[in-house]
Amino acid sequence: MADVVRIIGIGSGHPDHLTSEAADALSSVAYVVAASKGADDPLLAVRQELCDRYGVELVAVADPERDRDAAHVEKQSDYDGAVRDWHAARVAAYREVLDARPGPVGFLVWGDPSLYDSTIRVVEALGVPYDVIPGLSSPQLLAAAHGIVLHPIGRPVLITTGRRLAGDVAAGHENLVVMLDGRLSCLELEDPQEWQIWWGANLGTPSQRLVHGRLDAVAEQLESERTAAAAAGWVMDTYLLRRA
Amino acid sequence: MADVVRIIGIGSGHPDHLTSEAADALSSVAYVVAASKGADDPLLAVRQELCDRYGVELVAVADPERDRDAAHVEKQSDYDGAVRDWHAARVAAYREVLDARPGPVGFLVWGDPSLYDSTIRVVEALGVPYDVIPGLSSPQLLAAAHGIVLHPIGRPVLITTGRRLAGDVAAGHENLVVMLDGRLSCLELEDPQEWQIWWGANLGTPSQRLVHGRLDAVAEQLESERTAAAAAGWVMDTYLLRRA
Ligand SMILES: C[S@@+](CC[C@H](N)C(=O)[O-])C[C@H]1O[C@@H](n2cnc3c(N)ncnc32)[C@H](O)[C@@H]1O
Ligand SMILES: C[S@@+](CC[C@H](N)C(=O)[O-])C[C@H]1O[C@@H](n2cnc3c(N)ncnc32)[C@H](O)[C@@H]1O
Repeated sequence: MADVVRIIGIGSGHPDHLTSEAADALSSVAYVVAASKGADDPLLAVRQELCDRYGVELVAVADPERDRDAAHVEKQSDYDGAVRDWHAARVAAYREVLDARPGPVGFLVWGDPSLYDSTIRVVEALGVPYDVIPGLSSPQLLAAAHGIVLHPIGRPVLITTGRRLAGDVAAGHENLVVMLDGRLSCLELEDPQEWQIWWGANLGTPSQRLVHGRLDAVAEQLESERTAAAAAGWVMDTYLLRRA
Repeated sequence: MADVVRIIGIGSGHPDHLTSEAADALSSVAYVVAASKGADDPLLAVRQELCDRYGVELVAVADPERDRDAAHVEKQSDYDGAVRDWHAARVAAYREVLDARPGPVGFLVWGDPSLYDSTIRVVEALGVPYDVIPGLSSPQLLAAAHGIVLHPIGRPVLITTGRRLAGDVAAGHENLVVMLDGRLSCLELEDPQEWQIWWGANLGTPSQRLVHGRLDAVAEQLESERTAAAAAGWVMDTYLLRRA
């Protein structure tokens, strides 16, 4: 049975975005376990390329179905519950693999394991000792691509999700990084002329798209660029919103 | 005159924390400009080692005196003004170097250039074209060292500063990463028994120190570990606070 797990942040998945520490960790594992959303999962292909480069076998595990309807429910508790059920199913699937094969085993995480990622929780539920190797997160890729700092001098930045955006703005936040937003929730803000946006999709990949401007002025461009990015077979976007 | 600047995030300064992109960028510049707080600046030594490793000359520029008194003034506008004056002095000092020497020139940034760092603003004031190469930020090093995610499932995280902490907590924040805190401001919270803290000093370096626990229970340990870390000649700390 695998006795140790290495949780490795891989940034955008491009080899240039790996730290040497992450590259060494990847080279050190017996195999990598990765969730797969089907045979032609484009995000699995990126991880397969990374594993090939470092001569490590990738064991794909079919990702359990997630209750997607719950992603937009209004009650946080229902949302949390749906996420937890999905974690439990993932844990069971991974345990089977780890029980069958000696480790050390690697888990590759998009961006950085510290932001909106379940890998640490899944591995803790497996009860196997682990270490974490940080990787570049999407807010950092966004900031670097636009050449910006994520906050005005000395001010805070709230990192939040698309489904919480309206509430966070209502609570008075004026400088927010939004992740996990499947539908450009920023376009539903009541006063788009008051906001600047720095938006990026598929950051750090060949299908990267960037948009910057006043939210009302770039609304259509955001929609069309998001569609353009999705031609890669997947689209993930992150953006910074700042009240002018 | 230097015609292009590369702003390179170096994480903790340890070579293993550089991405290949950052290593390539560092190798590509004619020289690196770095602020120096004196001949025995320990943080300058780390950058010198990095430059030596990549065969790049480091040009140290004496850091202008900063009005430190202003760092704890109550009015945000006074604080902003003091920071701006200091930027202007930095810009003038760098301009002299860049005028005298052809580029490309590299600026090394601790952690990631997107968080509490003035390099992008300084380079914009220089009026020289630049690109930004992201690096691991201290919140990520903190999270990886503790093996944690920076927020409860689906919840936001506020990245803020020591001087704003009391106000942010008063405003209802329950999950905060605190940076730029020279004096463990968390120990002044009124209800320390209500908070969990994950604290790290000199993350990613040989003098790294970690503390985790209920804030009231670990208060003394925080003070003593901070003192222990400072034996390295410098101390910088970052922490996550979460209401229990
Ligand atoms: C499950 S979270 C994973 C975040 C990841 N751990 C990180 O550090 O970026 C997925 C969200 O991250 C963001 N994201 C991940 N990869 C991205 C990319 N290449 N470009 C833009 N956003 C990305 C999007 O907001 C997406 O909805
Ligand atoms: C001027 S800011 C620079 C932040 C940097 N750009 C980053 O991404 O981490 C300095 C603050 O960053 C944090 N910091 C920087 N390096 C650190 C380290 N090695 N360990 C802990 N905190 C660090 C501390 O909160 C410190 O007060």
